[in-house]
Amino acid sequence: MVRINENYVKLPESYLFSEIARRVAAYKAANPKADVISLGIGDVTRPLTPSVVEALHRAVDEQAVAATFRGYGPEQGYDFLRRTIIEHDFAPRGVKLEADEVFISDGAKSDLGNFGDILGVDNVVALTDPVYPVYVDSNVMGGRAGELTDAGWSRIVYLPCLQERGFIPALPETRPDVIYLCYPNNPTGTTLTRSELKLWVDYALQNGSLILFDAAYEAFITGEDVPHSIYEIEGARKVAVEFRSFSKTAGFTGLRCGCTVVPKELTVKVDGREVSLNKLWNRRQCTKFNGTAYIVQRAAEAIYSPEGRREVRENVDYYMNNAAIIREGFRGHGFEVFGGQDAPYIWLRTPKGFTSWGFFDRMLDECNVVATPGVGFGPSGEGFVRLTAFGERQRVEEAIERIKTKL
Amino acid sequence: MVRINENYVKLPESYLFSEIARRVAAYKAANPKADVISLGIGDVTRPLTPSVVEALHRAVDEQAVAATFRGYGPEQGYDFLRRTIIEHDFAPRGVKLEADEVFISDGAKSDLGNFGDILGVDNVVALTDPVYPVYVDSNVMGGRAGELTDAGWSRIVYLPCLQERGFIPALPETRPDVIYLCYPNNPTGTTLTRSELKLWVDYALQNGSLILFDAAYEAFITGEDVPHSIYEIEGARKVAVEFRSFSKTAGFTGLRCGCTVVPKELTVKVDGREVSLNKLWNRRQCTKFNGTAYIVQRAAEAIYSPEGRREVRENVDYYMNNAAIIREGFRGHGFEVFGGQDAPYIWLRTPKGFTSWGFFDRMLDECNVVATPGVGFGPSGEGFVRLTAFGERQRVEEAIERIKTKL
Repeated sequence: MVRINENYVKLPESYLFSEIARRVAAYKAANPKADVISLGIGDVTRPLTPSVVEALHRAVDEQAVAATFRGYGPEQGYDFLRRTIIEHDFAPRGVKLEADEVFISDGAKSDLGNFGDILGVDNVVALTDPVYPVYVDSNVMGGRAGELTDAGWSRIVYLPCLQERGFIPALPETRPDVIYLCYPNNPTGTTLTRSELKLWVDYALQNGSLILFDAAYEAFITGEDVPHSIYEIEGARKVAVEFRSFSKTAGFTGLRCGCTVVPKELTVKVDGREVSLNKLWNRRQCTKFNGTAYIVQRAAEAIYSPEGRREVRENVDYYMNNAAIIREGFRGHGFEVFGGQDAPYIWLRTPKGFTSWGFFDRMLDECNVVATPGVGFGPSGEGFVRLTAFGERQRVEEAIERIKTKL
Repeated sequence: MVRINENYVKLPESYLFSEIARRVAAYKAANPKADVISLGIGDVTRPLTPSVVEALHRAVDEQAVAATFRGYGPEQGYDFLRRTIIEHDFAPRGVKLEADEVFISDGAKSDLGNFGDILGVDNVVALTDPVYPVYVDSNVMGGRAGELTDAGWSRIVYLPCLQERGFIPALPETRPDVIYLCYPNNPTGTTLTRSELKLWVDYALQNGSLILFDAAYEAFITGEDVPHSIYEIEGARKVAVEFRSFSKTAGFTGLRCGCTVVPKELTVKVDGREVSLNKLWNRRQCTKFNGTAYIVQRAAEAIYSPEGRREVRENVDYYMNNAAIIREGFRGHGFEVFGGQDAPYIWLRTPKGFTSWGFFDRMLDECNVVATPGVGFGPSGEGFVRLTAFGERQRVEEAIERIKTKL
C-alpha cells in the first residue's frame, strides 16, 4: 500500500493570500463600483526591457535553425551566463567565484524550496519571524519542523524581528544547524549592515551552522554599508549558500531565472571525510532538474549589457520612487513606517488598536487600498502590514492620496 | 553542526555518459581525422518548428508591453495550456480530465525526479531493469533504495525485461508500493499493448500500489493496440500518475516544458481519512516551483494548432524513418534488433562474445559510430546497446553504410 510523506498532512492550508483575495472579492461584490488599488502585490508591473526582448527574439531565431539549434543544455546553466554573473555581480565587490560555483535555475523560489533535499532531516532550522513562507513550508515537508503548536513549529528556532531592535534578529539562544536569512528583507524591507551580517557569519563559523542567504532583493540596496552578497563578509564562503533572482529587477517573474551560489569551500564532515555541498547540489540538479531554457538564459545575459544594466537601473529607480512615495506619504500622515530604502517593501505599523487584519480591513473599506497583513508572515508580524513598491506610479500616487484624505 | 542527507553519499558517481564521452574523446585524440557519428545521443537535432517559433516571438512581444505583460503565472500552469492538452491528447482517447488534474512543468525529468517528495520513505519501489537512471537515483536520494549491493539496491524490487519475454516485465513476486513504468520504453524501444498494460493497472488496484507512468514517448506510437495514456485503461485514474513531455516531439529539450497528470480519484488513506495526491502535488509545486515561463507555455500551446500538429507529425516521421533505417540496416546485416517501431529507440543484441562495452568499443573502433552500452541502464541491459533515432538523416545513413561495410 503506497504511503505518502506524512509531513505534508501537518501543513495547514496556505491562508494569507487566499484570505486576502477572499476579502477583496467580497468587498468588490458588495461595492461593484469601487476602484480597488493593490499595494499588497508582490509581482512587478513593468514589462521586460528592450535589451531582454531583443535577446529573446534573437535566441528564438537561433532555435529555429538546425545549425544554431541547442537542445539539452547543462543542468547547471550555460557558461556564458555563469561567467557574466560572476563578472558583474561578484567580482566588482571583491568576491571571487568559479563558474562551477554558480548554478543557474528557474528561479530562487525553486532553489530555496529544493535546497533541503540535500540536508539531513535532523538539522535544527532557524527562521526569522516574520518570514517568507517557503522557508517554513519546505522544512515542514522535509520533516525538520516538528509539530505545529500555538507557539509555532516545535523544532524551529524562531528569530523574532522586533521594532525595538530595528527588526534585526538577535543571535539565537538554541544553536541551530541551518539559518535562513533574507536581506534586504521580505517582508520588513529592512536590511543588515556589513557589521551586522558579520555577526551571523562569525556565529555560523563558530557553531558549524549553514546560512541559506536569500539575496533576491540585493539590486534595491542603496546604502553604502550594506553588503550585496554575503561573500563580501570574510569566511562566508565556508558557511553560506546564496540565492539570487532576476524577478524583481528585470521583470523575470514570468520568465523564471535565478541562480544559487554554492562555494566549493562549503563542506560537511560525514564519517570523518569532507563532503562538498557543491557536489551534492550538482548531483541534485543533474537528477531532478534539466536546466533553464536556453532562450531565458540569453535573456538573463542581456541584463548585464551596458544597455541592459541601464534599463534595470531605471526599473529599480522607478520602483524605489514608488517606495519613497508610499513611505513619505504614510509618514507625513503620522504613521510609523520602516524599510523601503534598500528594499521594495515598506513595513507599516498599524495605528493603535488595530491588528494587521483589522487595519487591512480599514484600508480596504475606507480607501479601497489593499495591503498584506504582517501577521500572515509570522506572529511577530502582528501589528504591521506590508506594502510593496511594484505598482504603477499613478496608482501608487492615487492610493496615497486616498490615505491622506480618507484615513 | 549542519548535517547532509546521507543518502546522497550512497550514490555512486554517475558513470554511463561520462565514460562514453571519455572513450570517444580518447579515440578522437588517437585518431584526429576520424569522423565520429553518434547514434547514442538522446537529444533531438531538428530545430523548433515554425508554429512554435512564431508563438514564441508573439509571446515575447506581449511581455515587452505593460498592457499585455504577465508576471507570476499559476504554479500549476496556465489554463489555456492545460485545457488544450486535455482537448487534444486525452479527450479524443476517451480520457476525461479536469484542468486542475494537469500540472504544467519545466519538463518530465523534473517531475519524475521530484514526485518522491510527496511519498513516504518506507515505500517499496519497483523498477524495470534496464531503466532510466533518474528513477533509481531520485529514490536513493529519498532513502527508499536501501544499500547498494552486487545485486543492486537492497530495497528496490527489480523487474527484469528479458529478450525471451519480449522485454516485458513479469508481475513482481514481492509486492511493491510504487511501480515506475515507462512505455514506450527507454531504453529498449519496446512497448505494452492494452492488455499488457491492463495487467499492471489491475495489479496496482488489487495491491494498493501507485504506478508512476512515464509517457514521454507516446507520440512515437504507431501500433493500434498500444495505449497512448495509461488512463485509457479502466481503473487507472485510481492508481496512476502520468508524466508527459514535449521534448522529443516538438524539440523542447532546450525549451523545457512537460506536464504531469494527477487524477483527483488518486487518494491514499492516512489515519483513516483519504488524502488526495493531487492536493499534495499541488502543495509541493506551489511551495517549491513557481510555474513555467509564460512564453514557453504559449510555445507548447502552438504545438496543438493545425499547423503545429502537422509539424510535430513531420518531426516524428523524420525520426521514425531514421529508426527504420537503423533497424533494417542492422537486421539486414544479421543483427537481432528490437524496438524502434513505437519508440525512437532501437535495442540491439550484441554479437556473440561481445559485452555491451565490448561492442561499443568495436563499433567505435571499426566504424567510428557511437552507441550507448545497454548495461549502463541496469544489469539486464548487458549484451545490448541502445541506438537512437534523433540524428540527421544523412549521418544516420552514413553510419549504417559503415556498419554494413566494416563490421
